[in-house]
Amino acid sequence: MRAVRPFITELDDLQNKLLEMGGLVETSVHNSIRSLVDRSDSMLAGVWDAERRINRLDIEIDEAATRLLALHQPVAKDLRFLTASIKINSDLERMGDLAVNIAQRSISLLTRPSVGPLIDIPHMSRLVELMVHKALDAFVQRDAGLAENVVSSDDEVDELKDSISRELVQLLESGKTPVHTALDMIFVAHNLERIADHATNIAEDVLFLVKGVDVRHHHLSLL
Amino acid sequence: MRAVRPFITELDDLQNKLLEMGGLVETSVHNSIRSLVDRSDSMLAGVWDAERRINRLDIEIDEAATRLLALHQPVAKDLRFLTASIKINSDLERMGDLAVNIAQRSISLLTRPSVGPLIDIPHMSRLVELMVHKALDAFVQRDAGLAENVVSSDDEVDELKDSISRELVQLLESGKTPVHTALDMIFVAHNLERIADHATNIAEDVLFLVKGVDVRHHHLSLL
Repeated sequence: MRAVRPFITELDDLQNKLLEMGGLVETSVHNSIRSLVDRSDSMLAGVWDAERRINRLDIEIDEAATRLLALHQPVAKDLRFLTASIKINSDLERMGDLAVNIAQRSISLLTRPSVGPLIDIPHMSRLVELMVHKALDAFVQRDAGLAENVVSSDDEVDELKDSISRELVQLLESGKTPVHTALDMIFVAHNLERIADHATNIAEDVLFLVKGVDVRHHHLSLL
Repeated sequence: MRAVRPFITELDDLQNKLLEMGGLVETSVHNSIRSLVDRSDSMLAGVWDAERRINRLDIEIDEAATRLLALHQPVAKDLRFLTASIKINSDLERMGDLAVNIAQRSISLLTRPSVGPLIDIPHMSRLVELMVHKALDAFVQRDAGLAENVVSSDDEVDELKDSISRELVQLLESGKTPVHTALDMIFVAHNLERIADHATNIAEDVLFLVKGVDVRHHHLSLL
């Protein structure tokens, strides 16, 4: 028979699982881009292992959150923590898929001659990894300031993606870069941007958790 | 003073709001692609109106689900319905963003000469609209068979996207199609595929709701 565990311990476990997912996403993104910089696929195998672990955690977290809602019928902060966990879990699971997409583009790029410097992609990746890290830190520490910092970084990532895309379109138009190479790089930047969007979603959930105020679609209040 | 409304009425309201979001997504996708076929932007304005409405509904649904969890502390099917609603809501909100992305690509494509036939994009769009429609129908009717049908359609959409992308890469390589035009079309297909992925997520949530079995990452059970 399984011993009944205190509610607070269960909540801690849930949080630790979300943190583990965040760490796996961060490492997968880092290794996928690193493999492009080093032109080596040695770090890529870990990305698929990480995705399998992320997919298991996704199911475990949903089950645990639903079970805790049913058993403990929490209100106020604990209830908001559990609904936030369900949403953050879903973001992290998709970030794991996006990291795999990047790794697949990396493999494709490694089979072809180097396009030369990777433009701003490594810089963009560092920003995105940091956003993922800070969003999870903000969650653990219930730190609204850090969450706001993540939300405001999203614009910088969007601008970087736009400038990287413009450069790659020019390369395509010049006819000097193979189409597949430029397209793979456009999609790497695109996937990094989507990971940043999910980190922003997490930060917005943290703001709701801490402040009890929904900051999504905040422009609606001006309508 | 607001009269207390029966729990069952509140659950119905929540479901109707999710249905309204699904209808808005379906219409927005349809109109964005239709505008490409007709080469007319007259149907596009409604896409932005739809997105504003979707964003309002997103907030209303999250608030209602959290309030109902706190007030009624449901168990079993009602609890699963509410956690599924939170997840389906988040999928629909992102589908609304993706429909706007498609509309933006359509505007960009309408400013340039027609690329000629739109390859399989209108066909792919019809499939995706149908998936969205069926996923929401499956949710309302708690119809596991229909939900499974949605999940199995996802492969067909993926194949269509791959074949459309291949054709567009060939057009790019031939140098006969302007880079921006081909890229916009690649991203239209890409966004349609992502909408299909979200419809699949909804169908998987319906299967969990009906059967109480988590079908996501089902390959994990073979490990």
